[in-house]
Amino acid sequence: MVRLVQKEETLDPADWNAMRALGHRMIDEIMTYLQEAREHPVFQQIPEEISTKLNEPLPVEPQGAEKACEDFLNNVLRVYQTMNIHPRFWGWVIGTGTPMGMLADMLASGMNHNVEAAYTVPYQIEMKVLDWLKDMLAYPKDACGLLVSGASMANLIGLTVARNTMAKFDMRQEGLQKIQRKMTLYGSEEMHSCIQKSVEMLGLGNEALRRIPVNADYEIDIEKLENEIRKDKDSGYQPFCVVGNAGTVNTGAFDDLDAVAEICARENLWFHVDGAFGAWVALSPDLSHLASGMKKADSLAFDLHKWMYMPYGVGCVLVKRREDQLRTFSLVPEYLRHDEKAPVWFSDYGIELSRGFRALKVWMSIKEHGVKKYGRLIQQNVDQAHYLARLVDRTPMLERTAPVCSNIVCFRYVPSRLDEHSLKELNEKIMYQLAFSGAAVVSSTVIRGKYTLRVAIVNHRTTREDLDFLIREVTRLGSAWGKAR
Amino acid sequence: MVRLVQKEETLDPADWNAMRALGHRMIDEIMTYLQEAREHPVFQQIPEEISTKLNEPLPVEPQGAEKACEDFLNNVLRVYQTMNIHPRFWGWVIGTGTPMGMLADMLASGMNHNVEAAYTVPYQIEMKVLDWLKDMLAYPKDACGLLVSGASMANLIGLTVARNTMAKFDMRQEGLQKIQRKMTLYGSEEMHSCIQKSVEMLGLGNEALRRIPVNADYEIDIEKLENEIRKDKDSGYQPFCVVGNAGTVNTGAFDDLDAVAEICARENLWFHVDGAFGAWVALSPDLSHLASGMKKADSLAFDLHKWMYMPYGVGCVLVKRREDQLRTFSLVPEYLRHDEKAPVWFSDYGIELSRGFRALKVWMSIKEHGVKKYGRLIQQNVDQAHYLARLVDRTPMLERTAPVCSNIVCFRYVPSRLDEHSLKELNEKIMYQLAFSGAAVVSSTVIRGKYTLRVAIVNHRTTREDLDFLIREVTRLGSAWGKAR
Repeated sequence: MVRLVQKEETLDPADWNAMRALGHRMIDEIMTYLQEAREHPVFQQIPEEISTKLNEPLPVEPQGAEKACEDFLNNVLRVYQTMNIHPRFWGWVIGTGTPMGMLADMLASGMNHNVEAAYTVPYQIEMKVLDWLKDMLAYPKDACGLLVSGASMANLIGLTVARNTMAKFDMRQEGLQKIQRKMTLYGSEEMHSCIQKSVEMLGLGNEALRRIPVNADYEIDIEKLENEIRKDKDSGYQPFCVVGNAGTVNTGAFDDLDAVAEICARENLWFHVDGAFGAWVALSPDLSHLASGMKKADSLAFDLHKWMYMPYGVGCVLVKRREDQLRTFSLVPEYLRHDEKAPVWFSDYGIELSRGFRALKVWMSIKEHGVKKYGRLIQQNVDQAHYLARLVDRTPMLERTAPVCSNIVCFRYVPSRLDEHSLKELNEKIMYQLAFSGAAVVSSTVIRGKYTLRVAIVNHRTTREDLDFLIREVTRLGSAWGKAR
Repeated sequence: MVRLVQKEETLDPADWNAMRALGHRMIDEIMTYLQEAREHPVFQQIPEEISTKLNEPLPVEPQGAEKACEDFLNNVLRVYQTMNIHPRFWGWVIGTGTPMGMLADMLASGMNHNVEAAYTVPYQIEMKVLDWLKDMLAYPKDACGLLVSGASMANLIGLTVARNTMAKFDMRQEGLQKIQRKMTLYGSEEMHSCIQKSVEMLGLGNEALRRIPVNADYEIDIEKLENEIRKDKDSGYQPFCVVGNAGTVNTGAFDDLDAVAEICARENLWFHVDGAFGAWVALSPDLSHLASGMKKADSLAFDLHKWMYMPYGVGCVLVKRREDQLRTFSLVPEYLRHDEKAPVWFSDYGIELSRGFRALKVWMSIKEHGVKKYGRLIQQNVDQAHYLARLVDRTPMLERTAPVCSNIVCFRYVPSRLDEHSLKELNEKIMYQLAFSGAAVVSSTVIRGKYTLRVAIVNHRTTREDLDFLIREVTRLGSAWGKAR
């Protein structure tokens, strides 16, 4: 079985200087791409020739580093779907990224540390980053936490800890298959779909997730929440958790987190907050009061790649009591055994065992800009949302469909005498035209039955002029459509 | 609420050329770091002054890009814990990374695409990469799949699809809280701990996971597996899944996947394969037969950042029938609604909604080297494992504690007249000494009661000379310890 190969091979380059030169070239290309983002269409359909080129059979023989990079430049980068790096991308809630975040990702990838074990510098940096995040969000200093790929994972981990901690039996050992008294949890109708996904994965069943109506401002109706909890208790269920929204995905609304926290304390329920993007209003001078209840959460999920503008993918879950998180996830078999007095490894706090050095971009970005500047940028996006709302309100034919609480503006083009169906058709057409013309990307949603354009601003490149342009384009497309009918 | 800020701010650099120059410098630094990996200690303890420097309070004011990079170079990179990029790192199962993988990660981070929506080039590239991976592993072409952060996630997703598909009721809606007949699943004692973690998260309970004994080669005992399934059926359980190991984490053993597949077909069970690293023996001329049963799996989980040597974090789950995966995860609320005839978005296949452009490093790496070279490299690691086994077998005082099936070698230093406790103490000391002296990193495990050093070779920089050196060091440290007593 032992082959006598003369010389072993490696995946390292034969010529390191050529690889260095290629690296310099890639730096130049991508920096120019970022610098000129504004000059390019935010979206365009993929040319058919590109799709054909991408439809390549599995490479059996080596093409070499130069060719791999050439193909990337010609068939990926130069197709110029700048998307979320563009100043006029406001679809869904998708952040912009930064040049420094990109360099940090490169350095992390080069080091290729598995940030799991203690005793390494990357471990120390992730611990430090967690401290900084707790500090920025005014979350208790002795809380525990973990960087993850994004808020979906963060919510899943938070809810796993909630389920296991609140169960009246050994959930890890026995699971839900032995349950006597069914466990239920609560959140508003406006909750993000990833909460449902988590609840389904955890085996609780979508039925266990009670969707509480919202008030006129799209905040959870506190009285209805209390009633539902009481009703469930009376019916023999075990209510165990309330999910509070810090920034709903539809309208950017904030539940009254202090009121939810009070209910949770009184009823002995786990208080989980989904703050995917909204948690960061904590840094905004005008809106930080909306996030003040977050510090009372037993667990808190949020992203860094949305409103902190860092490159994908990095989110975070914080859990107030370390032992709850450890009891849920720690699982140390013989081949991973380490000194019991040693610091806890990250794998004992979550799902991933192998973990990249996500912390580096967070660390370097916060050092680069400092917290104050992030606060100003977040406030700037909030101000821009209010600016856009004013533009909408002043423009004939435009109807604002929801209040602006943080960074999301919902509106639509409404010529007279159109029924709901035609309004949907019209505004959908406007949305696609905006994108296909390369002008702007917005997404859509339905607010109380009204099909609506939705502008979510988590973009550090957006200016007020971009929003002026958006309104001009929407009205132009809308009126052109009216004339064409 | 609308502030009249004179000029909006951005996180972009004021001076793009300075940022470009900084990028060039970082390229040079990290390329040199990789090129000289062999010259540096594989591990060293963190100097106290570095820990002190890293213990920095939250930066409120900006430090700037230059300073962020300087601090990275001085306090992170130059601390030179090369770890898994070093030719003599063989701890756990942790791949090496490559310069091209690193450049691809930089480019992906710069583009900062959220690879979720169809209609974009990054989406097309991930789809293409999935085709290539199916091709490389001889998995059915019409299977479905998803890139994820690693095998823990891939296993979790595979087992979620298994649970939901095999349930006799609407698992998503009702969950396990309503279950009548308890669901059970099976795997060998040598299964990876992430399977237990998944089972616990899914609410099945660790009790539901039956650990089947292994034979002398650490493969699942097929007869005992059949007996356990029969016994559970007779006792009123619903067996629903068997997890096959393609490469166990302790010894690199492969279950008889064909035999497991046959049982699953006969008993109507889901066949899931955990091929975290071992799936890639499919590319090895000598060992591909061990992986031949993988194509029969209903779901298959594996990593690209282990034995395909790509940077963290990228793994993959493949699911044979697309509709099973969709039925488990698809969940499209209004604000994400898209054309029903359109291609399925990646969020409908898994947990993550925001997803980075992981596919780029896979695409560029496979193009750079071609499949054949990966096959040679994987075979090279297997050959090196057999080479090391021979060295162990020839060396007095060294005892090999498990057969070598693929790329893992287990052995220990065994002077005469030592009891198990002292042997553990001695070999643990050797392991730490190897690491703290910067010579090599190996990990440890316990094989049938014997504390053992464990060398897992998923390293494209390792040469046979490195293994010669390891044996010399182990015997030197072992005999020095004997003399010192």
